[in-house]
Amino acid sequence: MSTLQITGGTVLRPDMTAREADVLADRETGRIVEIGDTAAGEETLDASGCLVVPGLVNPHCHVAMTLLRGYADDKPLDAWLREDIWPVEAALEPGDIEAGTRLGAVELLKNGVTAIGDMYFEMPTVADVLGEAGLRARIGHGIVTVGKDDADARADFEEGLAVARDLDGAADGRIRTALMPHSLTTADADLVEEFVPRARDAGVPLHYHANETREEVEPIVEDHGVRPLEYADDLGMLEDGDFIAHGVHVDRTEIELLADRDVGVAHCPASNMKLASGIAPVQTMLDAGVTVGIGTDGAASNNDLDPFDELRDAAMVGKLGADDAAALAAPEVVRAATEGGAELLGFDAGRIEEGALADLAVVDFEKPHLTPAHDPVSHLAYAVRGSDVEHTVVGGEVVVRNRRVQTLDEAAVRREAEAHAEALIRRAEGN
Amino acid sequence: MSTLQITGGTVLRPDMTAREADVLADRETGRIVEIGDTAAGEETLDASGCLVVPGLVNPHCHVAMTLLRGYADDKPLDAWLREDIWPVEAALEPGDIEAGTRLGAVELLKNGVTAIGDMYFEMPTVADVLGEAGLRARIGHGIVTVGKDDADARADFEEGLAVARDLDGAADGRIRTALMPHSLTTADADLVEEFVPRARDAGVPLHYHANETREEVEPIVEDHGVRPLEYADDLGMLEDGDFIAHGVHVDRTEIELLADRDVGVAHCPASNMKLASGIAPVQTMLDAGVTVGIGTDGAASNNDLDPFDELRDAAMVGKLGADDAAALAAPEVVRAATEGGAELLGFDAGRIEEGALADLAVVDFEKPHLTPAHDPVSHLAYAVRGSDVEHTVVGGEVVVRNRRVQTLDEAAVRREAEAHAEALIRRAEGN
Ligand SMILES: [Zn+2]
Ligand SMILES: [Zn+2]
Repeated sequence: MSTLQITGGTVLRPDMTAREADVLADRETGRIVEIGDTAAGEETLDASGCLVVPGLVNPHCHVAMTLLRGYADDKPLDAWLREDIWPVEAALEPGDIEAGTRLGAVELLKNGVTAIGDMYFEMPTVADVLGEAGLRARIGHGIVTVGKDDADARADFEEGLAVARDLDGAADGRIRTALMPHSLTTADADLVEEFVPRARDAGVPLHYHANETREEVEPIVEDHGVRPLEYADDLGMLEDGDFIAHGVHVDRTEIELLADRDVGVAHCPASNMKLASGIAPVQTMLDAGVTVGIGTDGAASNNDLDPFDELRDAAMVGKLGADDAAALAAPEVVRAATEGGAELLGFDAGRIEEGALADLAVVDFEKPHLTPAHDPVSHLAYAVRGSDVEHTVVGGEVVVRNRRVQTLDEAAVRREAEAHAEALIRRAEGN
Repeated sequence: MSTLQITGGTVLRPDMTAREADVLADRETGRIVEIGDTAAGEETLDASGCLVVPGLVNPHCHVAMTLLRGYADDKPLDAWLREDIWPVEAALEPGDIEAGTRLGAVELLKNGVTAIGDMYFEMPTVADVLGEAGLRARIGHGIVTVGKDDADARADFEEGLAVARDLDGAADGRIRTALMPHSLTTADADLVEEFVPRARDAGVPLHYHANETREEVEPIVEDHGVRPLEYADDLGMLEDGDFIAHGVHVDRTEIELLADRDVGVAHCPASNMKLASGIAPVQTMLDAGVTVGIGTDGAASNNDLDPFDELRDAAMVGKLGADDAAALAAPEVVRAATEGGAELLGFDAGRIEEGALADLAVVDFEKPHLTPAHDPVSHLAYAVRGSDVEHTVVGGEVVVRNRRVQTLDEAAVRREAEAHAEALIRRAEGN
């Protein structure tokens, strides 16, 4: 057995208590085998002064959009997509997506993220990069048919399905897939009805944006006489294992539908604030039994991929939305950002216990802004930032040690991303 | 002339453009003397790969509350103060405040903060610590008369006035003062009417919490038949140089009153979200000509003192509050967090230009989460975090170099803060 021993730290357990313990992981199975006074490992990772937490899970992202970080801000969703993002995305080349995904992977790993959901383009390339980086991911081709003729629209769905079938299980099983129609208003409904059963036959779940803005909800209600998630249900898009992004404007019926169908929500508070989309009723969802994870969405609407920003945002704006300072309490948001996200993605991770996947982040608590440490869970929710992550482990493999990414060359990744971003904007604005 | 030269960086100018330039500061006057191709300085600070920005200003804080970071979360303001914070504060000893202020100073300086507003207790001690740390500050004794008999209430006002008179100009002028009644509902109105003119005679401005929660606004409207800031105006509490904290629940008349009287607002978005107080109408205030700074409030309701969290929060929640993604755009929040805060505090700082105080933060942009750099102002608003600050300079003196605080011993400060926090809680809970 090839093992990794994480020594000298304090471990956050699934019940949100913390206690001093070592963690032993088996690198062959990728799982935690022992917690407490463990046997010595072949490889060790020093966690003294640190809190060992489940790896953070970012269930909704568009990783390669790191190339557009800060390119266009301070605009609402529709104008931002049409005027800024889509024109640049039209100029994207595979090398750009490779460079942007690599940059995002470096950032995510250094922030303690071990698993992601990624919806984008050129997914075989994305799978290669994420595999190489050492991340765990559920990925899919973002199917957008708006403005496409029938043949192109169908081809986009075919690509989405092919990606979902072919890449599932890549990188020794770390890469899983989903069919990812962009949203209920940007992917053709007839094609959804045709391809969803084909995805079900292939054993592939669905992930899509839903109920993000009022502007997106209203036309569905007008055209179909039902709420968007009822409409999604009619299209066969709400089955156990599926998960949606956003769910900002959902009513009571829709929340109950999500709970009934066991369909989870990737809550993206920063994106929802930045685009002025609204506040998702997350406490109500949790109370109804909906599984909630916390996602960054793309870096262009955030503008970084720091899960600790996100879980703080979830707690903060969740209180405002519920008009209750007790809503989205620290343990709830920490659980959503770890176990919740892992459930959405269908990974047996997000909790430090024997038998679970050894996806971990080791957070250095010996910092002024984490002193004193009355309550480590409070610190995770309100004070820790991604730069406090000292080591990151995925499936028992050390992917970040002492803040250095082990799987990619950070300086080279940054240089290449800069070059690609510059050339991309030049091409797009020259169009 | 004893000079500091900051070399090789890109400088953020008051018009929010960035250009490569060196900055030369005179340590005797504490001011910027040259920007561009400067003469060599006696001391140099390497800013290559960095953005040189005005020091961040945190106009509303209770610095020593770092000792209570994470002690009580997820409660509304009134319950949180009465059940958790005030009982512990009643057990505070001067040594606790010294230790907590030192911890907060280390945190603030490492996050690029150069000037603060601080309302707390034991202010001679606070002035000593802030002076020693190298911060610039406007400080005052927090006058709370709730639950006190007449003699104690009067003594508290006397202490507030004495502190304001005696400490003004301490630490070679880096420390200035204000009379700081806690709020319109927690400081006795008769005593306010008696002591405000005495403060005016001493040339001391006012700072207090106002319009923070609905629960605080309603009784004033009921008892006095006017809005809280009209009531404050009747009490003589709205004069040029005064500034309030929060201003969450202000109406159009009050916003115009603030603009008319030249009274600024320290907006504390994180605290307002965490205590579910509401969203301040900051874009409306700015449009009306009100000066706005961005404050952290105390660490107990935040839970850290990172101005970059705060300015991101201001932008994010400002868009939600205005229901407009274009509101609180990046340049506006960056300006509020620097120049705006400096104006509130009455310091000739917050802009990098010749003649202004040499209060600066040097932010390392060579990070994955700040790559690529399409727009440095966007990065400051949405992606930079306090840990990206490489150097901090106050009045031409280097107070943080390469992330090491030069004026205090960080490890000793953390150790002492931990010991004091533990003893304080033991005393308070044993009461
Ligand atoms: Zn998205
Ligand atoms: Zn306050």
